[in-house]
Amino acid sequence: MEGKAFQDTWPEWGSNCWGCGRNNEHGLQIKSYWEGDEAVCTWQPKKYHEAYMGALCGGIIATIIDCHCTNTAIAAAYKAAGRELGTEPILKYATGSIYIKLLRPARIRKPITLRASIKEMKKSKITVSCSLYYQKKLCASGEIVVINLDR
Amino acid sequence: MEGKAFQDTWPEWGSNCWGCGRNNEHGLQIKSYWEGDEAVCTWQPKKYHEAYMGALCGGIIATIIDCHCTNTAIAAAYKAAGRELGTEPILKYATGSIYIKLLRPARIRKPITLRASIKEMKKSKITVSCSLYYQKKLCASGEIVVINLDR
Repeated sequence: MEGKAFQDTWPEWGSNCWGCGRNNEHGLQIKSYWEGDEAVCTWQPKKYHEAYMGALCGGIIATIIDCHCTNTAIAAAYKAAGRELGTEPILKYATGSIYIKLLRPARIRKPITLRASIKEMKKSKITVSCSLYYQKKLCASGEIVVINLDR
Repeated sequence: MEGKAFQDTWPEWGSNCWGCGRNNEHGLQIKSYWEGDEAVCTWQPKKYHEAYMGALCGGIIATIIDCHCTNTAIAAAYKAAGRELGTEPILKYATGSIYIKLLRPARIRKPITLRASIKEMKKSKITVSCSLYYQKKLCASGEIVVINLDR
């Protein structure tokens, strides 16, 4: 993992997101890092994040994939502009769509790993693909379209 | 709204879901009811469910749409079988895919309303469409494919 977590570089007004805000004490507080051209996140669910019988809730899966991918899209936009993450003026993006395929149950007992990469980068939007693993088994895949709010 | 909330009829082992379990004190505890052929849910976000600046987090939107639609699919399967909700043997379904389009920010200040209806019902899977409103404005739409685990 390279450098600072993406989420630790955003300004205070962008630090309260329920899925990834470093200042949201009730939230999931995921952290995303570059690892070569991929962005990686490792996150430990809590007992109460289950759907039933120890399987991780699908909504939590959608949340961590969405937040990880949106953060990855913004980090990639900074990289493409040759700029340091989080420097002013802030590049403003927001999720446009979320597509998640649930392939097999992920569990809440041990950490979840997410691996995201940029599928397509346009001025108006960035498409990010993501795989979710539990104990090295692929449990879900996602595709998130992230809209450039400054376009 | 007609009858009991769907989530209040499931057995104890299905009552802990983070999105909709009546016994998950840390969860969102959404409640879904029939209103004619539509299933309706009204839910009040908490301050910490925001993405930023008072906009509802996309992951929370995905969660409540997923849970509302999956509950609706199961309720529709009971209805199609001419059976009372929650009666044994339990009809077992799980989310197969989640597609959410975020159209405009929903806010956290006032209640969110979800309206879902069955788009397609097969033996192997049920497809449910859903619209999410804030103050009567359409803010997100979703399509959830729910897999029959007994197929």
